[in-house]
Amino acid sequence: MINIVLVSHADLGDALIRAAEMIAGHAEGLYSVSLLPGESPEGFGAKLEEALQEIEGQETLVLIDLFGGTPYNVAARQVLKENVECVTGANLPMLLELVMARDDASLSELAEEITQVGQESVKNLGPMLRK
Amino acid sequence: MINIVLVSHADLGDALIRAAEMIAGHAEGLYSVSLLPGESPEGFGAKLEEALQEIEGQETLVLIDLFGGTPYNVAARQVLKENVECVTGANLPMLLELVMARDDASLSELAEEITQVGQESVKNLGPMLRK
Repeated sequence: MINIVLVSHADLGDALIRAAEMIAGHAEGLYSVSLLPGESPEGFGAKLEEALQEIEGQETLVLIDLFGGTPYNVAARQVLKENVECVTGANLPMLLELVMARDDASLSELAEEITQVGQESVKNLGPMLRK
Repeated sequence: MINIVLVSHADLGDALIRAAEMIAGHAEGLYSVSLLPGESPEGFGAKLEEALQEIEGQETLVLIDLFGGTPYNVAARQVLKENVECVTGANLPMLLELVMARDDASLSELAEEITQVGQESVKNLGPMLRK
């Protein structure tokens, strides 16, 4: 099973997990590492390392809230490790797709797939629904 | 000022606001309406109505977590009202752009703008960083 590590400002990663579990039920292999207000990049990096040590060597997808900023700066380099992919712009449709599709795709396919799902999930409803 | 109403499963909207405020500081005119576990669509609808009554007639952008599901089903019809736009696929870059750009754009421009920002914020880092 591919592990999923959410990396975010504040408790956004935890809230994404709670929202996904409301829809898809409890899922294993979900981790969240949060940058707390006032926390240093070093402190955050240590927490991320600790979370990743637990699953070292296993296939892991790191889902990052935002391109840029401390969580990104600390986590993005993980993509240079074997068996790790990183995708930014975390939203609920991406996490749901990850949870539901991770048994049917390779890690690199999954990264591509949730990138596409994430981009397509952003829709401006006015022009669609007011036709 | 354009109001921003987050509509989500569980406390995802609240967590998005906390994350955005960690980066951009406290912002006015931010509201969050959450579908709680076990809550009925009617119960959720009543909470949304109550939140929207407070700002009725004012320009409002409703940012929805997911295309489909109860929060979407209840909130999307708001787009048929004057002065309301709705965008799905809520993520942190979209909320940050909303908070920072809402004084410089019309409501419909803002909806287009955050749709583009949201789509472009989803990036698969492996192919970019392993070159």
